Amino acid sequence: MSARNALYLQSGGMTAVINASACGVIETARRHPSKIGRMLAARHGTLGLLREELFDTGTLGRGELIGMRQTPGGVFGSCRFDLDEPEANPEQYRRLFAVLEAHDIGFLFLNGGNGSMQTALQIARAAEARAWPLQVIGIPKTVDNDIVEADCCPGYGSAIKYLASSVREASIDMASMSSRRGRVFVLEVMGRNAGWLAAGCGLAADGPDAAPQLILVPEVAFDEAAFGSALHRCVERIGWCTVVVAEGVRGADGRPLSQVSSEGRYVQLGGAGAVVSRIVQERFGFKVHCAVTDYLQRSARHLASATDDAQAYAVGAAAVEAAVGGAHCVTTAVQRVSSSPYCWQVGEVALARVANFERRLPESFIRADGLHVTGAFVEWARPLIAGESVPAFIDGLPRYWSPRLAPVPAMLPAHEPRPAGPKAKPSD
Amino acid sequence: MSARNALYLQSGGMTAVINASACGVIETARRHPSKIGRMLAARHGTLGLLREELFDTGTLGRGELIGMRQTPGGVFGSCRFDLDEPEANPEQYRRLFAVLEAHDIGFLFLNGGNGSMQTALQIARAAEARAWPLQVIGIPKTVDNDIVEADCCPGYGSAIKYLASSVREASIDMASMSSRRGRVFVLEVMGRNAGWLAAGCGLAADGPDAAPQLILVPEVAFDEAAFGSALHRCVERIGWCTVVVAEGVRGADGRPLSQVSSEGRYVQLGGAGAVVSRIVQERFGFKVHCAVTDYLQRSARHLASATDDAQAYAVGAAAVEAAVGGAHCVTTAVQRVSSSPYCWQVGEVALARVANFERRLPESFIRADGLHVTGAFVEWARPLIAGESVPAFIDGLPRYWSPRLAPVPAMLPAHEPRPAGPKAKPSD
Repeated sequence: MSARNALYLQSGGMTAVINASACGVIETARRHPSKIGRMLAARHGTLGLLREELFDTGTLGRGELIGMRQTPGGVFGSCRFDLDEPEANPEQYRRLFAVLEAHDIGFLFLNGGNGSMQTALQIARAAEARAWPLQVIGIPKTVDNDIVEADCCPGYGSAIKYLASSVREASIDMASMSSRRGRVFVLEVMGRNAGWLAAGCGLAADGPDAAPQLILVPEVAFDEAAFGSALHRCVERIGWCTVVVAEGVRGADGRPLSQVSSEGRYVQLGGAGAVVSRIVQERFGFKVHCAVTDYLQRSARHLASATDDAQAYAVGAAAVEAAVGGAHCVTTAVQRVSSSPYCWQVGEVALARVANFERRLPESFIRADGLHVTGAFVEWARPLIAGESVPAFIDGLPRYWSPRLAPVPAMLPAHEPRPAGPKAKPSD
Repeated sequence: MSARNALYLQSGGMTAVINASACGVIETARRHPSKIGRMLAARHGTLGLLREELFDTGTLGRGELIGMRQTPGGVFGSCRFDLDEPEANPEQYRRLFAVLEAHDIGFLFLNGGNGSMQTALQIARAAEARAWPLQVIGIPKTVDNDIVEADCCPGYGSAIKYLASSVREASIDMASMSSRRGRVFVLEVMGRNAGWLAAGCGLAADGPDAAPQLILVPEVAFDEAAFGSALHRCVERIGWCTVVVAEGVRGADGRPLSQVSSEGRYVQLGGAGAVVSRIVQERFGFKVHCAVTDYLQRSARHLASATDDAQAYAVGAAAVEAAVGGAHCVTTAVQRVSSSPYCWQVGEVALARVANFERRLPESFIRADGLHVTGAFVEWARPLIAGESVPAFIDGLPRYWSPRLAPVPAMLPAHEPRPAGPKAKPSD
């Protein structure tokens, strides 16, 4: 059988190291010219696939791949677009397979999170239903770290390296300003349903009274009295307190502390930090500062984890090796071989076991009072932030680079996908 | 005349490199044992002086000074405490000079911003009025860059290196998500009266359409129509827009867009980013994300500017040399010798020419439409962020260190300073 082409998609929210996965895919595919012909990439993920907006990565030189690998965001563009079910929108699937056929795509690599794994599964099943020869392979990526059946997700290590560093630095600043009364620093981090990012801030706490002193995660219902009591005890003991708040923290009634807007199909959350800050200031009478890192926490490539970067590359490379070896309908996944010394490998997991599931913090990672992480979490998370993968600096700033590739000429009529139906998703 | 002791104070809001100034003071004083005896430091600045909470820095070894220099925040503690005028509170000055006398302080080094320079001037004049032999020297420090009679202020370069890097990274992330409609990223930065920090974000814009596309500074009244029109043009052209907002941006009526709280003596501003985000979303209909870096922007030692670090050390070292040379009632200041190649030196300026003045962005640094900086600003600011001063990383996080020094035994009765009267100050 002659070589067939491959298509690589970036999907969902970005990370600081997703382009390392792209490099892993592109460079590994080049080692298998007898199996994989051209390695194409879609502009803005699934949307680019449906629009037939494709690039040929074959023109990228080695130096360009180095520049691309150290750049945050998705160099080919991403999107939040869920496919409909085939029976609800057969036209969408006809179009999708028409594009795949026009470009002789035999391998589809989808680099994304839970929702994207569902998209990969939908395409894989639709291909099977049509008996269309297509190998679909997922490549994990999410700062949320909420993909099941993996030890950790590429993107997460860099995000928590940045967040824990920031918590440590801001807290040192605040502590040095705490000459008189209680001061409180609130940091809002991402995490709609799972507290992995908030928990990761706990890595900054290198002593019993080190910041952050309190961590609020969505897995634990916010209890104002318990929070206030812990806050007061902390301020009494050391004069100040740093509180990390996941954006998705909920009250006892299950409703988010704050919900910024819900427009279209995704619910964009935010403001939990502001709500907690108001409580700290107005009800408890402390002076409060609040920071919201938003996009910064998932794009801070200047402080990326070398371990995370290596894992992101490896899950991309392994996806191509798996495809060449005949795998289909699986995702690659980082697996832990041992914690001390930290040793990891990339395995394969069936897409059906991953798609649209969500991994939340296990109880063993949450302190008994629900206001911090456990030693078990720290032991698990610490290796993920090891090593600094520093980008090139020019004129005092990190230098980033995204390819400006000429699009592959379209072979089909123009087509604009209609947005899929409403569905709650993390903010992007 | 035999050697007399010296006292070093950290004052006002912190920076990522203020401890480099402390190291410059301590290490330089050690070279002049015939003039300067013990180098003491007050705990929490002026408050520690009044409380007689002093440390002897003589026990700090070379390795400890290295660890201290790469640590953000003020290792000896700072405060926001303004002295009253002598006639309004003679008791305060009696106490202050009693402490100076008890510890034979002949040199006072005050490391701070505009307000702290005023404190230095008050002490210097009171000393003169009493004919008390005291040399008072200011050492500049502020991320706000608003001290007059200097080319730039130590602390500013590191803050804008961090902010410009963050703007660049977050904007790349957002651009890769912009598959469909207009997206807007709003970053709120510090700056109550002066737009230096917001302007510094302009360094990230390395092309005509590069982020940030819009910069709102307090020097220019916020004009919603002009802003909306520029925003729409930008989104039409490139699909998205990054907007930097100084916390102190004001409307045409001179009132801040948002004022979080005014408790006690300082007005704590904030929320300008949230207000602009609401306008962008509700009136202009764009999808918006908003980040507020707050303390992070002035404590991000992991991304400090090597130039800034060197200047912070130099203004501390030069202050001691000036004192040893007989200077009194001056502050050191970074002066520019040439822009290309960038060449700087440390000069001396009379405290009276600096105290409580405030330097705002000159017109030549603000683009004609008031929504960005000029090439002249970029040319001026770029050298300030040159070079990376990277702290040690251990276990994946920057390792910081603050001395835990034994206090110098008090020789006077305990004393708790009463807070000075209300006065508006930047948020801390």
